[in-house]
Amino acid sequence: MKKKLFIPGPVDVAPDVLEKLATPQIGHRTQEATNLQKRISEKLQTLMYTDNTIILSTSSGTGIMEMSVRSCTKKRAAIFSVGAFGDRWYKIAKANNVPADHFKSEPGEPTTPEMVREVLETGKYDVVTVTHNETSAGLMNPVYEIGQVIKEFPDVVYLVDSVSSLGGAKIEVDKSHIDICLSSTQKSLGVPPGLAVASVSDKAIARAETVENRGYYLDLINVVNRVKRNYQYPSTPSTPHMWALDYQLSKIIDEEGLDNRFDRHTRLANIVREWAKKHFELFANEAYASNTVTTIMNTTGNSVKALNEELGKRGYMISNGYGDLKEKAFRIAHMADRKEEDLLALLKEIEDIWGLK
Amino acid sequence: MKKKLFIPGPVDVAPDVLEKLATPQIGHRTQEATNLQKRISEKLQTLMYTDNTIILSTSSGTGIMEMSVRSCTKKRAAIFSVGAFGDRWYKIAKANNVPADHFKSEPGEPTTPEMVREVLETGKYDVVTVTHNETSAGLMNPVYEIGQVIKEFPDVVYLVDSVSSLGGAKIEVDKSHIDICLSSTQKSLGVPPGLAVASVSDKAIARAETVENRGYYLDLINVVNRVKRNYQYPSTPSTPHMWALDYQLSKIIDEEGLDNRFDRHTRLANIVREWAKKHFELFANEAYASNTVTTIMNTTGNSVKALNEELGKRGYMISNGYGDLKEKAFRIAHMADRKEEDLLALLKEIEDIWGLK
Repeated sequence: MKKKLFIPGPVDVAPDVLEKLATPQIGHRTQEATNLQKRISEKLQTLMYTDNTIILSTSSGTGIMEMSVRSCTKKRAAIFSVGAFGDRWYKIAKANNVPADHFKSEPGEPTTPEMVREVLETGKYDVVTVTHNETSAGLMNPVYEIGQVIKEFPDVVYLVDSVSSLGGAKIEVDKSHIDICLSSTQKSLGVPPGLAVASVSDKAIARAETVENRGYYLDLINVVNRVKRNYQYPSTPSTPHMWALDYQLSKIIDEEGLDNRFDRHTRLANIVREWAKKHFELFANEAYASNTVTTIMNTTGNSVKALNEELGKRGYMISNGYGDLKEKAFRIAHMADRKEEDLLALLKEIEDIWGLK
Repeated sequence: MKKKLFIPGPVDVAPDVLEKLATPQIGHRTQEATNLQKRISEKLQTLMYTDNTIILSTSSGTGIMEMSVRSCTKKRAAIFSVGAFGDRWYKIAKANNVPADHFKSEPGEPTTPEMVREVLETGKYDVVTVTHNETSAGLMNPVYEIGQVIKEFPDVVYLVDSVSSLGGAKIEVDKSHIDICLSSTQKSLGVPPGLAVASVSDKAIARAETVENRGYYLDLINVVNRVKRNYQYPSTPSTPHMWALDYQLSKIIDEEGLDNRFDRHTRLANIVREWAKKHFELFANEAYASNTVTTIMNTTGNSVKALNEELGKRGYMISNGYGDLKEKAFRIAHMADRKEEDLLALLKEIEDIWGLK
């Protein structure tokens, strides 16, 4: 039985989007390939509220995280973390000998503009990384407000991981002064895994041009230059994902509409949060609760593993807590094309299995 | 009109293989994901004649080239090149500050066991890279014979790019003492672009464990450890490609059969070479001509661009020469699931357009 996925990616993908993966092959050096990327670029600019250059990377989102922090750090990166994917930026920096410091918030608490200001005022840093939506914590950081601080530090390049939020929450890249905003397809965008996307500012490009040892496959400049030349890539990209993404972006922008889509995500998030507060506790500070995934403390003492096994028999899959929280919490994603009725049905099943009233 | 692709990748993909891309999504941390990778691993071991560990990388083949040479070079890499993709190894090494020297053969001539022996006898190198099938030159290097030399140098890790040959020519990895044999899906394997594959020896793994600064997304050890643990990946892989590859490998191994498949490639290669010798000249030394792509010198003085445009109207696409050879040569690929009748029809069209007799 195919399970409905309420895990924070991969998400269920609509059949008509899946079908686009099976588009017959084209040469990656043809006008057709150029046109395909150009269409994707324009639609992603709309979705991201930006005029910046759009690039794709045939990799997971982690690939563009590495591309960004390795290519843009000349002095030292300030890595702000509110969970596992924030920590990943730091691991990536260390693995590439990129000078970096790690600023962690208390569990469930956000990265704040004040924290960022304090760190930047030391003058030690030329890159800031922030996780927009931390799937381990179910927490959304105030990337717009942080951006207003970063704007005051013209030498600082601002990198934002919006892997699990782009398409499920409004991210105004230009107004937030985000230099690289990166995401991947298998989360709120509603496309299968295998492709990452990013917007890249001229400031990020100018910085990267001065950084040595940027590597090859994930060299920001190598990719940007080729895209700027003719909307193509230095090596063969995943055209199946490009066809599916191009199609799904039209559905998101023209069919559902951006505001409708963000509103639907907010509505689903509110349903889960109210339900969670009734029966359990939220992990994250509610003022910063995520629009796309909710982390719920398992206050029952029941086994999360057993819950998920029983849900599996009934056609659903949720996620356990991340890392140390494996049995202490569980996570319900409400992203991409998820419908309210499916979410309500899932919550009913959990109530039934655990005898919640 | 959909053109039949005779370019050296991406290749045309069978409709039933394409359909597998559209398989509904699964969690990448599930038993189902583990089973999928395990099946792929076993089939690739069969195709590659090896007991080594199989890994996939959601990237182009270039991604695994970088993973290999960056992770395995502790002392210095000897890069042997017979064209553009051999040169790429050197660019990758330089872009990562990996010490490397570049040994180029004369145009159209192979990397020989003697060249490799002479270089290794200096004692300066602990990595050798060789391109098995150079698509720019239409040339296949004697990787088995080179492997017999490398065997005599137990500290040397042997990296082979078989991007455009795996699935179209017999590569006996273990008998050839190849430590990392890498490929990608959109060439002779007959799957769309977006995924790379490799076999990795224990010797390569042991070496990489001693190398620092291996990066993150393309860190060989990070990937190998996760695959060895439970056939999963550190970050979300392209499951659409995995479903398609799993299915296509069964077709290759069980339906067509490996020897039949390699024989068919040889037959097609012979047809193109005999035809090319009748009307033009071969670029590569014929003793080392490729099984999967033929580079033909354009001795007519006619425009290759115009030829390809006219072929396009008739439903075919070939490649021009690579780099400097753009108009001086053209390339016809004969790889993956290509049938003899289609190849013969293409050659007839070229004869017709250029008035060859």
